[in-house]
Amino acid sequence: MSDALPHIVILGGGFGGLTATQALARTPARITLVDRHNHHLFQPLLYQVATAGLSAPSIAAPLRQILRHQRNVTVLMDEVTGIDLAQRRVQLTRERLDYDWLLVATGAAHAYFGHDGWAADAPGLKSLDDALAIRRRVLTAFERAEQEDDPARRQAWLNFVVVGGGATGVELAGTLAEIARHTLTGEFRRAQPRAANILLVEAGPRVLAAFDPALSAKAQRQLEHLGVQVRIGQAVTSVDGEGVTLGTERIAAHTVLWAAGVAASPLGRSLDAPLDRAGRVIVQADLSLPGHPEVFVLGDLASVQQDGRPVPGVAPAAKQMGQHVGRLIAARLRGDRRPQPFRYRDAGSLATIGRMAAVAQFGRLRLSGLLAWWVWLGAHIWFLIGFRNRLVVMLDWAMAYWTQARHARIITGADERADRD
Amino acid sequence: MSDALPHIVILGGGFGGLTATQALARTPARITLVDRHNHHLFQPLLYQVATAGLSAPSIAAPLRQILRHQRNVTVLMDEVTGIDLAQRRVQLTRERLDYDWLLVATGAAHAYFGHDGWAADAPGLKSLDDALAIRRRVLTAFERAEQEDDPARRQAWLNFVVVGGGATGVELAGTLAEIARHTLTGEFRRAQPRAANILLVEAGPRVLAAFDPALSAKAQRQLEHLGVQVRIGQAVTSVDGEGVTLGTERIAAHTVLWAAGVAASPLGRSLDAPLDRAGRVIVQADLSLPGHPEVFVLGDLASVQQDGRPVPGVAPAAKQMGQHVGRLIAARLRGDRRPQPFRYRDAGSLATIGRMAAVAQFGRLRLSGLLAWWVWLGAHIWFLIGFRNRLVVMLDWAMAYWTQARHARIITGADERADRD
Repeated sequence: MSDALPHIVILGGGFGGLTATQALARTPARITLVDRHNHHLFQPLLYQVATAGLSAPSIAAPLRQILRHQRNVTVLMDEVTGIDLAQRRVQLTRERLDYDWLLVATGAAHAYFGHDGWAADAPGLKSLDDALAIRRRVLTAFERAEQEDDPARRQAWLNFVVVGGGATGVELAGTLAEIARHTLTGEFRRAQPRAANILLVEAGPRVLAAFDPALSAKAQRQLEHLGVQVRIGQAVTSVDGEGVTLGTERIAAHTVLWAAGVAASPLGRSLDAPLDRAGRVIVQADLSLPGHPEVFVLGDLASVQQDGRPVPGVAPAAKQMGQHVGRLIAARLRGDRRPQPFRYRDAGSLATIGRMAAVAQFGRLRLSGLLAWWVWLGAHIWFLIGFRNRLVVMLDWAMAYWTQARHARIITGADERADRD
Repeated sequence: MSDALPHIVILGGGFGGLTATQALARTPARITLVDRHNHHLFQPLLYQVATAGLSAPSIAAPLRQILRHQRNVTVLMDEVTGIDLAQRRVQLTRERLDYDWLLVATGAAHAYFGHDGWAADAPGLKSLDDALAIRRRVLTAFERAEQEDDPARRQAWLNFVVVGGGATGVELAGTLAEIARHTLTGEFRRAQPRAANILLVEAGPRVLAAFDPALSAKAQRQLEHLGVQVRIGQAVTSVDGEGVTLGTERIAAHTVLWAAGVAASPLGRSLDAPLDRAGRVIVQADLSLPGHPEVFVLGDLASVQQDGRPVPGVAPAAKQMGQHVGRLIAARLRGDRRPQPFRYRDAGSLATIGRMAAVAQFGRLRLSGLLAWWVWLGAHIWFLIGFRNRLVVMLDWAMAYWTQARHARIITGADERADRD
């Protein structure tokens, strides 16, 4: 490929970066896609890996495999250490890239609202490594309960606190309740998995705040029906290895999962542009960086307002942004200079709660319960990348549905925390 | 369950320990099965996880799930720290168990023949964590090659050395050759995966020494046909992060895999009994410990001679030993005191080399090539534990067969070595 072709550097192979890359398939350009992982991750199903329902490879595919037929792309597994907007250069740990166009789509991580020390005791869920660490903790907790004679100490291993009542928190809490009440039935001789308490703590006034209040109420009832204790309007004031504090109440729990806060990738701070409160880059109407029409920010890292409301940090929005920026650059390279503002089309919202329970919202249509669950199931299988993954996920779920078993219930890796007896 | 029932403690949930547990299903006894992992592992397919063909959960199942209907068993995930034969006690990290009968089936680990310092640079393959670490190294090596400009340094990332020409070494080398020549085709832009050198080093006079010499020769030809360089009669004299030394020859290779030596579990040394050169416990004809008819050693930890030859350390032998000891204890508890020597029935040997290449030996029948491969495939799918696993493995393999893709090609976890640029 000629070096004379314009060089498009895309940072991040999530929904935004991958979609942009694919939208540029027929554009005469050299594209370099950089991700610190070797795989694209189907993040909406990450909670299933964390709760042992799916294996990690079922929701991830190597970026270079997805893009192997797109000959204008070079995939690099590396990390970005700096961006020089003036020189139009990106520094990676192993090489330096000069760009003509730059797309920054490095997403978001967890935010602990100034309590970064909580991270070790309350892991969040963003990457496959996060999911495997949570799976290890959850499964190990039941094992420890089986080996603990003292009732109070045993219960601390059977208490699970999920912090944050958004989609991820609701999914985690609902699935933990199923595991305790159904999956593990009959497998323990000393501890009773059914004695597990699953606590979902939300500081705001309702769960699933992005949904219609009526659906939030239904979701809460469905969670409670599954056995989850929902605590609304309560904020976690401390977290340590022995439990959490909610105001004046102390709850002994060795397993605390964090689904409360999202902080944009720190790369946003190096772009010399205004950031919103979550650290997201406030972009122009066409998603370009103010003063830098050759640089675009997309996905969870971009702060975009539309009709007075923020565009949500969800997969469909990131994909639409990727599509938009890909087409825009293709047009520019054809000499088309017309302004092209980004417009988000809300395709609806879906959140699953547990076996046969979900909520869905499409424009004015609201669904909950079994029907919403079927819609959720179909949509998630449909959008999974790669034929094989879809088939295996369907098979895993069909088996799980009938048997209530969860096939990925293996503990791998060492617990990164000190041993607690 | 009454405490008056005899207590049978089984250490290790591999093929030996699990089979013994299941053979005692109808025996009026309390059984405690201890394993440091929560899962039984189908070890013959571990190399498939290491080479990204199968996901880890496909070849592992939680011990307590397998045994959930066997009400006389308590499963504990814990490690043994000591055995007191005189007091009939086993010390775990979290509790102490008093036993009436003890089965020690803790298997084997890698042996570096006095060079334990090589372990960091030449990992072996015994557990799922080992397999995932090898998968990470192999996949990362190709990524690093893509980012390396200097031809010699790039080639060092594309050189793979497998030490040991037994079944595991042959399987690893054959599969690595397939990955380099087929799976990764067209996915890299700078490096050529086909430029990879796969070196299989065996110090003895032939590969697959447990097989008939004619089959060893065929296996070597099949390996060479796949692109593996087979070095016979050459011993590795040093290993470090930059490569290996074979006598006076230095080979630059960042990826070295160890499949050469097996050392019995160190627990054998605490049993106060004679050990063979590999550290295995030399047991009585009925697999009991000399002087301790209530203690049995089985599986890879037991050294058993039959007709002047050692019983091999393979899964069928471990399962037969488990069956034998389970039945023997059941008989003793019924009051039957007759001596019951163990007798190994050789069900044949199978080793796979690569896509459509294997060798098999059943008594006087010898097979190689495609037919042996079909026999290998059927046998391994048949013996995989659990309906779901068999189905998914079949699906994965059918897909891999047609597409040459390997679905578990994701890099998780951090490389435990220092970064090498």
